[in-house]
Amino acid sequence: MDYLFLSRIIRLIIETIMLQEMIVAIEEEILEVLQSLNKKNTFNYFKMVDYQFGISNRQKQTKNRGKMIRPLILLLCSTSTYSHKSWKYAVPAAAAVELLHNFSLVHDDIQDNSPTRRNRPTVWKEWGIPQAINAGDGLFSMANLSIGNLSNHFQAELIVRTMQVFNKTCLDLTRGQFMDIAFEQIDNISLEQYWTMIEYKTAKLISASAEIGAILSGKDIQEIDNFREFGIKLGLAFQIKDDILGMWGSEDKTGKSVTKDIETSKKTLPVVYGLVNSSNFAERWYKGNVTKDEAISLSNQLIIDGALKYSQDHVINLTDKALSILKKMHLPAEYKQDLYDLSTSLLDRET
Amino acid sequence: MDYLFLSRIIRLIIETIMLQEMIVAIEEEILEVLQSLNKKNTFNYFKMVDYQFGISNRQKQTKNRGKMIRPLILLLCSTSTYSHKSWKYAVPAAAAVELLHNFSLVHDDIQDNSPTRRNRPTVWKEWGIPQAINAGDGLFSMANLSIGNLSNHFQAELIVRTMQVFNKTCLDLTRGQFMDIAFEQIDNISLEQYWTMIEYKTAKLISASAEIGAILSGKDIQEIDNFREFGIKLGLAFQIKDDILGMWGSEDKTGKSVTKDIETSKKTLPVVYGLVNSSNFAERWYKGNVTKDEAISLSNQLIIDGALKYSQDHVINLTDKALSILKKMHLPAEYKQDLYDLSTSLLDRET
Repeated sequence: MDYLFLSRIIRLIIETIMLQEMIVAIEEEILEVLQSLNKKNTFNYFKMVDYQFGISNRQKQTKNRGKMIRPLILLLCSTSTYSHKSWKYAVPAAAAVELLHNFSLVHDDIQDNSPTRRNRPTVWKEWGIPQAINAGDGLFSMANLSIGNLSNHFQAELIVRTMQVFNKTCLDLTRGQFMDIAFEQIDNISLEQYWTMIEYKTAKLISASAEIGAILSGKDIQEIDNFREFGIKLGLAFQIKDDILGMWGSEDKTGKSVTKDIETSKKTLPVVYGLVNSSNFAERWYKGNVTKDEAISLSNQLIIDGALKYSQDHVINLTDKALSILKKMHLPAEYKQDLYDLSTSLLDRET
Repeated sequence: MDYLFLSRIIRLIIETIMLQEMIVAIEEEILEVLQSLNKKNTFNYFKMVDYQFGISNRQKQTKNRGKMIRPLILLLCSTSTYSHKSWKYAVPAAAAVELLHNFSLVHDDIQDNSPTRRNRPTVWKEWGIPQAINAGDGLFSMANLSIGNLSNHFQAELIVRTMQVFNKTCLDLTRGQFMDIAFEQIDNISLEQYWTMIEYKTAKLISASAEIGAILSGKDIQEIDNFREFGIKLGLAFQIKDDILGMWGSEDKTGKSVTKDIETSKKTLPVVYGLVNSSNFAERWYKGNVTKDEAISLSNQLIIDGALKYSQDHVINLTDKALSILKKMHLPAEYKQDLYDLSTSLLDRET
């Protein structure tokens, strides 16, 4: 075994241990926040939100858990070059972005009428729409409360700034969600409209995760721009990869139906591309009421007409752009490497 | 006309002008916050939230507007004895509680399957459930953003404290809502459970309005306790009055159906009382599937068996308690008088 190979293995082990330490810290923080519901009169409410995360001891099932991408990005970006353990102080903010992400998933599943998520029934399927709406609202409140928990280690000015970025991002998220829902009823969505929609719906929260990390580590405004832009590019790539997996992924791995997006007229990138560049696809699409079988043949048609290739190229290009911004970001080498690995792993993911 | 009478008239006019000035300021602030949605791609989203409030120029219809009780309480409590106009600085917080209240109404109407509010179709009836969930989420984000707007006049520490009270209250609100929904499926709700449910669902936000006012005017912790307690008592009275109006009010005035609560098995105070103290009522109730006609005869049965009187007595007693706490609160005389008038007007309200 040569020296370079050995040092790479050691580095990987150290990085894995660090990421694992971060994930444990995020999960513990989330569980602590959720505990505020684990009280008389609201035990069942606690059970609902606990179920959504699938991280408490009772349900140690990896396949039911989220990927924790957003909170990890936040923590990796929150580390200052002079104090390598400073990410620990930012854990309440990391928990907040994951709480917010899950609030949006709980409501999203109702809005999309999705019966399963992470290989099991969605919250609304288990407890009904009224309680699921309420559980999402509770997660939103807890996300904001978690930001407030930063006050043990940060000055109030920094917390107020974080809160503003955070809630501006929540509002942007709802703007994207508004467009996503509205676009289901509109056939002639332009590529420009698509890009705006996914920027708001997905990229802004990933971007805010990087930005909040940078804010908490005391970076100056120009530097913060890089963190924000890195997150936008990565977030756009992430959503397009999601669009691809939604149509051509493995149902076993994603835990979602591969025909649902077409059946519900979702405007994903392959679809928006196909409506312009594949007359076979467009012709059938415009007639409406696509069945499950037809959805599969339509997704094959999209491959033939280049929609998959087109989408994959965008994922690669956007990830490249994110990585070239990453090079300029001021972070300790091992954190930068972790962000690099995390970004490239999103390219190849199957879930 | 004697002197005392004349001075009372003058005082009433001044108070009315002041309250009117406050309402205008709150509405302007809310409209400004909502404007962030009035942009390319989200015009229709803006239309939804604008519709919920009914305060923009296009819809100058008093009967479609809210009563603004919470933001008025906040502003009246935010005035310090040495600067009578200091309420103006607290307007962003007042707008925040009204935004939050309306977020909860938009979701509540979906959860309760209510077709009308303020004499017209609810948001979900007009735009569908997915968009209405999203509009509520947006209002929640805007409420938090509005708190951040306090930073023009208040120190960051005070804003962080306000945010924590605010989001703790949001979470409590969802606890109450959880119970309210869960109780629809449970027949043997105790009076104790009822009181806890309405404290969380309704009283906490009214209490937080008074508390935030007190925090922003720089009151000390012991004083703040009085403001909070005043709000709790008033809030409980408010909810019971709502229960009464929901069953025996005028549909024209409340804009809501008087049979809906019984039809959907809502656990209001008259019902919880009736289940214990009116065997005629309880017998029919437990059989389920109460029709509209039966609901009317059941609500008459409740009057005969004392449920209306029992509920009205609670409204009067709780309002009395609130008013005796009000006496101890440190506020300029005219603001105290306004809070007194507002509290007693809630006793006699018909909407």
